[in-house]
Amino acid sequence: MSKITFLGAGSTIFVKNVLGDTMLTTALQGFELALYDIDPVRLKESETLLTHLRDSIGSTCTITTYLDRKEALRGAKFVINAIQVGGYDPCTITDFEVPKKYGLRQTIADTIGIGGIFRNLRTIPVMLDFASDMQEVCPDAWFLNYTNPMAVLTNAMNTIGGIKTVGLCHSVQVCVPHLFDALGMDHNGVESKIAGINHMAWLLEVKKDGVDLYPEIKRRAAEKQKEKHYDMVRFELMNRFGYYVTESSEHNAEYHPYFIKRNYPELIERYNIPLDEYPRRCIEQIKHWEERRDAILARETVQHTRSHEYASSIMEAMVTNQPYKIGGNVMNTGLITNLPNEACVEVPCLVDASGVTPTYVGDLPPQLAALNRTNINTQLLTLEAAKTLKKEHIYHAALLDPHTSAELSIDDIVNLCDDLIEAHGDWLPKFS
Amino acid sequence: MSKITFLGAGSTIFVKNVLGDTMLTTALQGFELALYDIDPVRLKESETLLTHLRDSIGSTCTITTYLDRKEALRGAKFVINAIQVGGYDPCTITDFEVPKKYGLRQTIADTIGIGGIFRNLRTIPVMLDFASDMQEVCPDAWFLNYTNPMAVLTNAMNTIGGIKTVGLCHSVQVCVPHLFDALGMDHNGVESKIAGINHMAWLLEVKKDGVDLYPEIKRRAAEKQKEKHYDMVRFELMNRFGYYVTESSEHNAEYHPYFIKRNYPELIERYNIPLDEYPRRCIEQIKHWEERRDAILARETVQHTRSHEYASSIMEAMVTNQPYKIGGNVMNTGLITNLPNEACVEVPCLVDASGVTPTYVGDLPPQLAALNRTNINTQLLTLEAAKTLKKEHIYHAALLDPHTSAELSIDDIVNLCDDLIEAHGDWLPKFS
Amino acid sequence: MSKITFLGAGSTIFVKNVLGDTMLTTALQGFELALYDIDPVRLKESETLLTHLRDSIGSTCTITTYLDRKEALRGAKFVINAIQVGGYDPCTITDFEVPKKYGLRQTIADTIGIGGIFRNLRTIPVMLDFASDMQEVCPDAWFLNYTNPMAVLTNAMNTIGGIKTVGLCHSVQVCVPHLFDALGMDHNGVESKIAGINHMAWLLEVKKDGVDLYPEIKRRAAEKQKEKHYDMVRFELMNRFGYYVTESSEHNAEYHPYFIKRNYPELIERYNIPLDEYPRRCIEQIKHWEERRDAILARETVQHTRSHEYASSIMEAMVTNQPYKIGGNVMNTGLITNLPNEACVEVPCLVDASGVTPTYVGDLPPQLAALNRTNINTQLLTLEAAKTLKKEHIYHAALLDPHTSAELSIDDIVNLCDDLIEAHGDWLPKFS
Amino acid sequence: MSKITFLGAGSTIFVKNVLGDTMLTTALQGFELALYDIDPVRLKESETLLTHLRDSIGSTCTITTYLDRKEALRGAKFVINAIQVGGYDPCTITDFEVPKKYGLRQTIADTIGIGGIFRNLRTIPVMLDFASDMQEVCPDAWFLNYTNPMAVLTNAMNTIGGIKTVGLCHSVQVCVPHLFDALGMDHNGVESKIAGINHMAWLLEVKKDGVDLYPEIKRRAAEKQKEKHYDMVRFELMNRFGYYVTESSEHNAEYHPYFIKRNYPELIERYNIPLDEYPRRCIEQIKHWEERRDAILARETVQHTRSHEYASSIMEAMVTNQPYKIGGNVMNTGLITNLPNEACVEVPCLVDASGVTPTYVGDLPPQLAALNRTNINTQLLTLEAAKTLKKEHIYHAALLDPHTSAELSIDDIVNLCDDLIEAHGDWLPKFS
Repeated sequence: MSKITFLGAGSTIFVKNVLGDTMLTTALQGFELALYDIDPVRLKESETLLTHLRDSIGSTCTITTYLDRKEALRGAKFVINAIQVGGYDPCTITDFEVPKKYGLRQTIADTIGIGGIFRNLRTIPVMLDFASDMQEVCPDAWFLNYTNPMAVLTNAMNTIGGIKTVGLCHSVQVCVPHLFDALGMDHNGVESKIAGINHMAWLLEVKKDGVDLYPEIKRRAAEKQKEKHYDMVRFELMNRFGYYVTESSEHNAEYHPYFIKRNYPELIERYNIPLDEYPRRCIEQIKHWEERRDAILARETVQHTRSHEYASSIMEAMVTNQPYKIGGNVMNTGLITNLPNEACVEVPCLVDASGVTPTYVGDLPPQLAALNRTNINTQLLTLEAAKTLKKEHIYHAALLDPHTSAELSIDDIVNLCDDLIEAHGDWLPKFS
Repeated sequence: MSKITFLGAGSTIFVKNVLGDTMLTTALQGFELALYDIDPVRLKESETLLTHLRDSIGSTCTITTYLDRKEALRGAKFVINAIQVGGYDPCTITDFEVPKKYGLRQTIADTIGIGGIFRNLRTIPVMLDFASDMQEVCPDAWFLNYTNPMAVLTNAMNTIGGIKTVGLCHSVQVCVPHLFDALGMDHNGVESKIAGINHMAWLLEVKKDGVDLYPEIKRRAAEKQKEKHYDMVRFELMNRFGYYVTESSEHNAEYHPYFIKRNYPELIERYNIPLDEYPRRCIEQIKHWEERRDAILARETVQHTRSHEYASSIMEAMVTNQPYKIGGNVMNTGLITNLPNEACVEVPCLVDASGVTPTYVGDLPPQLAALNRTNINTQLLTLEAAKTLKKEHIYHAALLDPHTSAELSIDDIVNLCDDLIEAHGDWLPKFS
Repeated sequence: MSKITFLGAGSTIFVKNVLGDTMLTTALQGFELALYDIDPVRLKESETLLTHLRDSIGSTCTITTYLDRKEALRGAKFVINAIQVGGYDPCTITDFEVPKKYGLRQTIADTIGIGGIFRNLRTIPVMLDFASDMQEVCPDAWFLNYTNPMAVLTNAMNTIGGIKTVGLCHSVQVCVPHLFDALGMDHNGVESKIAGINHMAWLLEVKKDGVDLYPEIKRRAAEKQKEKHYDMVRFELMNRFGYYVTESSEHNAEYHPYFIKRNYPELIERYNIPLDEYPRRCIEQIKHWEERRDAILARETVQHTRSHEYASSIMEAMVTNQPYKIGGNVMNTGLITNLPNEACVEVPCLVDASGVTPTYVGDLPPQLAALNRTNINTQLLTLEAAKTLKKEHIYHAALLDPHTSAELSIDDIVNLCDDLIEAHGDWLPKFS
Repeated sequence: MSKITFLGAGSTIFVKNVLGDTMLTTALQGFELALYDIDPVRLKESETLLTHLRDSIGSTCTITTYLDRKEALRGAKFVINAIQVGGYDPCTITDFEVPKKYGLRQTIADTIGIGGIFRNLRTIPVMLDFASDMQEVCPDAWFLNYTNPMAVLTNAMNTIGGIKTVGLCHSVQVCVPHLFDALGMDHNGVESKIAGINHMAWLLEVKKDGVDLYPEIKRRAAEKQKEKHYDMVRFELMNRFGYYVTESSEHNAEYHPYFIKRNYPELIERYNIPLDEYPRRCIEQIKHWEERRDAILARETVQHTRSHEYASSIMEAMVTNQPYKIGGNVMNTGLITNLPNEACVEVPCLVDASGVTPTYVGDLPPQLAALNRTNINTQLLTLEAAKTLKKEHIYHAALLDPHTSAELSIDDIVNLCDDLIEAHGDWLPKFS
């Protein structure tokens, strides 16, 4: 019997999506679905929901739960990771509130930016503990990472952890449908090519029957941009840099020095930027779950239709050897020729029994490579900090961050880092 | 209406296979199948057979014939190439008979070796004429090359011709089935990974349910090797270098300095090497066709089941955007990290609406990379000769050829090249 | 007789330094020193001074002047370039005054930054005209470029112009002496290793008798930084990023988003940043020359001691084949492994009869590579604009500029570019 | 006081040359010259000669001798290596006599070929012991390697041993003088560019006053080739491949499949190939030393003029920081772009206080890269055998050797390897 281990299985709704997909997949019937979380209550809740779901579907998968991580991982063929270290309270609160004292405003803080840096620093040690356990009990398993910040964590698992890891984000597969829906265009039969880095990958080609659809997209986008809507940052990026980016406007607002600027307070309104969006979502999600939990867990018949998450299709392709194509996060072994080789990139990958094999992309248009490089700078320095445990590299990561460095002085950036280190307390390893 | 142009359509049986597959493919219905050949008689024969086949299948494809090449290519979406320049008589006869005067014996002469070098030299100019026409009348078409020598011709089309070209050879897809059949093993559910150069690609992994099958393969191969059979060269290569190679024993016998040796005449018998195999096959094939042609062309009902050739599946994947995996010949843009970047390599490729996208392989085991490099040496120098039209580079190609240089002295190699240039007459461009 | 052509020979004082050095070099005696400038008056002045100098020295070099550029270049063995396109008035005034309307303040504007971008855009076409002439009348000559912006112009001459070009800047050779003088340390016998990009190259190693001197340097620098001095920006960069940078504080103030910040007006005072330094220097230099010109040109006996400029030593090494080491600007053919290959880098080079041969550096410390990449982004996009003549790439260059993007909004950046294009008038080619 | 350690100091004459040069070098006065050898008698002889030499010169260097290797190395700034493992008797005898039983004839056997492979296999473990000691007692010392086979040993010291190593061979510096002398041409003022791999580096450029001298060289060489002389193999290589090679004809005769061929016995005479040259030289050298030893060691006044060996000039350049140019053997970090990165290459290097810094070469002409690759194949597989201690990689190295594989069958090659392993006995580590 084969085993799929889910780390962070207390995220009940996400577990339901990914393992519900799995239960609906013929090739994965009979697998053990091993749930692991540090929170026994939430683990139990996930078990309950999944059991109802399994019985509703009629899947032959078995569901087990573990509070011992190594036992959860032992013998796994696939490991799916969706942990969050430090949670909304206290860590997300810290990520947003401490920078605010310096006037530094954020929207999501899960990728780069000062919040993304610290999210990485507290998550990497936990991930490397996973890697260490896996080296012992399931060294050949594939690690499907859903945890953010995607690029740095996937890089750490591959290069430090030595585990076969692919980073997965649904921003790739929803990019074209969401764009086309927003513009009133039909995306059926549309072919696209996407590459770059996670959350800043580029829609390099978008065609139907060989015809480039960008002129029509840009025409409609310019029209739509005349009034307020929820994707104004991305449309502006496309307007200025020529290509649409995979991640949402609220994310991209903080990846660049262009949108949240103290010198230009009117831009928040102009680009409709939802400051503090992520903590707001967290609060709502927690509230929503608390209100509906009992009802959800009581229902014995649970519906599920296969979602757009890649995980079950990846496992299916590896088991059946039927080729499947994903946009995956992998090490840049010369794939995108004008981005650093040390970076983790998001490129089309072929999945089959040989695993996840990335494809060759070549050069990005120079302006897109340049934008990616500004973010890779912070990513690589964050990784350096995690590897060396030297505080100076945390400062470097923050000093190179496009938004942070545009807004704050060197002294404020360094002090902010020190404050965040202190506020994190034991959520961070000791830096010297 | 979309158009598929077939160059060298006088190869009636091969055309039937590839375009028969096409007619059986739903996504390719309604395409124009444009047949081109320099021989009007054979072109007519192919048209007759294909028309019978089309009607038998009930395909909605249309069949057209062209003696004007540029008109055949105009507006094509796909171009399939299966030409042979110079044919059996006179060129294959030349390839074998002139070297024989120097004591140099060959088996196939379609890849490297002295015969492979000259086959390239007479074919490249014709291919570049195709490229030149295509730049004018169908610059975005994909060129699916079946003509040998695969590696050099595909290289020339991509780097000199500037045409999107993938080289296709069925040795990849039949590699595992043939090996397993020969050893009495079942290849159902077997996963494999193959990479290298055309005709010398390596079965790097062969597993079932995660279990390495090489130990069992090698055990049975050693047993079988005790008596005479038809794959003795490859089994010996596997025995000594650890991996099975894609192309047959009669081919591989002449890619190395190990098998056809004047100092060791007994090896011919020992490894069961069919010297002069290719001309013998040509004669038989011609005789066979002449005997059966009238009967074949008279039959109005023609059967066809989809073959293992990649072409129709590639076109289907590009049209439907359903991913398909092939072993394709492409430029080595850092894909196989221990082979030269200037080489054309055979690697797993993803095919979909974005075209043929090669995947990353990394380092080959060092002994396999070394063997490939000995053949790439001759390939790259042949290409240099074709590009510069300098005779000295023909000598270099022959002097670096592993079999030729093992057998002959420098003087004999140079004289042999001169004799072959003279014997070719107008089949070659002028070299200085 | 061999010939050295000096382009922009109207810069009388600089010509005196470089060609004075030449006249003092034994191996270069008898050379023709061909002076070219578009300004006949200044050309005549340089001729007068150089003739006096030549006679004072007793050199056998001949001095000729040309207003016809192609004749000046014909048959040259070396071409030294020190032109300035557009001069102080009008172009430098434009570079500083137009951005000021948007609140964008600069210090030097000759490298990157909005001023550096436009200085490139108006200079590249003139440089490529040089290249075009040279292809005709002296294709094998070495081009020794002193004109700024160094990195982009040297890149353009090599990759578009196809001329063997090395970029020369004395910031490399004065780096250690100036630093040691400032700190009251003795630089005799000190060994150093410097690499990076022009004006942002890094003192990677600084040792005496194998002992790392950085701890002492940093100790003294921290002490000195307590009071106001003229190198505060560089000391702060060393403090935060760990390494000393080659170019001066007034230059580096505008290469980063850290020093000239509208949100932090106090930083100008704190780091002692001389805003508008370059135009101030231009005015003083012009005034100084006008006041002293007649006296200088009247003196028939002129003194010269060999300066620290590389040019005469480079020519000497090429002529004598005695190896000489420089810090030169060359294309990054894998030399600095964590900077883009498309960039022009400043690395140790070996000069001898084989020309200027760059040496291998490997990876820079990650924070230094990251800082370099932020500037390379703007450099490469500026080059893209010059190559394609597309306005959008000018916007990209400015949008990626670290200082510009930190200070201004997208709209202001785009409008500023448009204003600068208009203000330049015929000093720029037409962009579409 | 600084220390230079000489490993293999029993090679009295070579020690005299290299350390005599050192004693004549002002910047190296006062250094300790630490002599180490496993043979106390020869060590004593070297000490005697060097002491006489030191006193004759009046150098302030001190001379010490060590039989304890780690003490000899402790605190060294430079380590010069000239060991030979196994000596003439028994190992060189083995290298020549065992292959002879299979009809495999050699000339020198110190580079590649079956003899070169085994010379590597018995030397690498000793070298790695040096590296291990050095990591402990002088980790920052530069290792100047004179021991052959140069390419593989230098590769092993750098990549496995982790010691800063440059490989030195005087074939680079004598290449042009010897060629010009042989052809009656004057080499004064001649500039040359040499790159490739050790013993097969190429005279890529040879010019005087900018004029290519190759046409005249080739004209004279063709004339000279009409009668018998001592450099016929190299002249033939130049004739056919267009470039002169650094190492002598007797060496190059066995690097290729062209010259020692059982099928063409007349080539030995035709190319004047001195079979068994190396053992003959060994015997003469031993006899010569025995006859003259007492007289040499008795003389108290010893003459020495600085030789063409690089070592003392390298140490001088590192100590004085005066740049010096050598042709050195270093790892191919992208320096020669069409040779494998794993290879050790011979390229121009800059030496100064920063150490030995290799320069960028780019692509070799394709035929030269191809010839180098055939030798690199054997080098890399030999290294693989030494690293993995797997017998199969010894077979691979021999099977890929151009001369061995041209002459022998697979079975004979494998049996020959087995015989050589057995004949070596404890001179080799255990392979499985």
